[in-house]
Amino acid sequence: MKKPVIAVVGLGLIGGSLARALARRGHFVIGVDSAASPARAARRAGAVKSVLRLESACARAEVLFLAAPPRANIALVRRLAKIAPRLVVSDVSSVKQPIVRAARLARLDRFVGGHPMAGRERGGFAGSDADLFRGRPWLLTATPDRRALKTITALLRSIGARPVVIPAAEHDRAVAFLSHLPQLVAWGLARCAEQDPVARRRLSLAGPAFAEMTRLARSPRALWTEILELNRAEVRAAIVALRAYLSSSL
Amino acid sequence: MKKPVIAVVGLGLIGGSLARALARRGHFVIGVDSAASPARAARRAGAVKSVLRLESACARAEVLFLAAPPRANIALVRRLAKIAPRLVVSDVSSVKQPIVRAARLARLDRFVGGHPMAGRERGGFAGSDADLFRGRPWLLTATPDRRALKTITALLRSIGARPVVIPAAEHDRAVAFLSHLPQLVAWGLARCAEQDPVARRRLSLAGPAFAEMTRLARSPRALWTEILELNRAEVRAAIVALRAYLSSSL
Repeated sequence: MKKPVIAVVGLGLIGGSLARALARRGHFVIGVDSAASPARAARRAGAVKSVLRLESACARAEVLFLAAPPRANIALVRRLAKIAPRLVVSDVSSVKQPIVRAARLARLDRFVGGHPMAGRERGGFAGSDADLFRGRPWLLTATPDRRALKTITALLRSIGARPVVIPAAEHDRAVAFLSHLPQLVAWGLARCAEQDPVARRRLSLAGPAFAEMTRLARSPRALWTEILELNRAEVRAAIVALRAYLSSSL
Repeated sequence: MKKPVIAVVGLGLIGGSLARALARRGHFVIGVDSAASPARAARRAGAVKSVLRLESACARAEVLFLAAPPRANIALVRRLAKIAPRLVVSDVSSVKQPIVRAARLARLDRFVGGHPMAGRERGGFAGSDADLFRGRPWLLTATPDRRALKTITALLRSIGARPVVIPAAEHDRAVAFLSHLPQLVAWGLARCAEQDPVARRRLSLAGPAFAEMTRLARSPRALWTEILELNRAEVRAAIVALRAYLSSSL
């Protein structure tokens, strides 16, 4: 069976890793990126065969993945609804309700929300890795279009990920506790230590546990600020829970 | 020069690792432990040459390290002041003001407070490792007895640790932010996720970041509860700082 042509929009850590993994499985992968340098790097690495503008990519691809930052992905969903409303589209955003709602309102009917539970410190295409998703859960939002869901599921399985279908609201609640609050806390621990006049002078004495608990603080701040804002209601609930735990420890 | 005979009281992760490291450097190491099984394991591993009761160990040793839990170390300081008031004694407790105060009040004049900034998940003698302290800071409280400090410093350097002298109050403030608050937060993140009805059902979907941020939650709870209680005032200040950070993120 001929392998579908795939377009990946956004060739950073996640999009780049996805392109690499699909290319290795023999797909013709088209890259789309507003910046020239990741696209060039992806072509040089063999992750994508060609780099096109969004319209041309839609004309050739049978499946398109949105791997830009979350707000950009939402804007792209609205654009795709106009230029390719029947295309099977998925995304990799860390918050699912806003983009699923945008796709429904725009009538991008074959949209399947996605979120790979994988990552690493080093962002950008330079950090990408064809094995990034191997054995990792890849969350997919329940969708009315069963064929689109089946197509995406098969593609993800083929690159070694574990697709798990989950309602968007449940996803956003769970990741607030499992991913977004930990990110916020890593920043908080680093910040509090830096702002205390004694701890600040002794940062170099910290043991491996402090390094581990603040490693996430080096994650790209602009991207994470966007994620936390998009999932504001659920993140707020998680913050309230942790504040209550801390108060009970006073 | 003949290497001093060393007694190590408490053959858990830290005491066991210290005994192993000193034995490897050629010291005659005496083990003291209220339980029979770690003492047996330490002798079998060659970490200690003999296992004695505290009184007999004091009679033979030239330097004694207290590596029991923090409250037990404080009680031992008072006992040592009676049976061996001129012995060079150090400890490995994570909170320094209470034990330094106890030594001063009891007139154990050659006491040097210590705290190795090293550890690992697997506790007990079974987790011990002669290289645990290699390259790691080993904090020592300033002390009036300069010869005792010199003796301890030389011993720690010989096993590859980096001795750093720090006032006890400054130590307790710094570790509240760099070690104790991170420990509390690891428990808090795990607890909040387990108590949220949605996140709890989705724990298996968590990414590597959640595992990393909650790994410390598996640390021995009884030991840590003791540490946090002994450093209550400083830990409180650190909690207040983190709560303020979280509130500002709401």
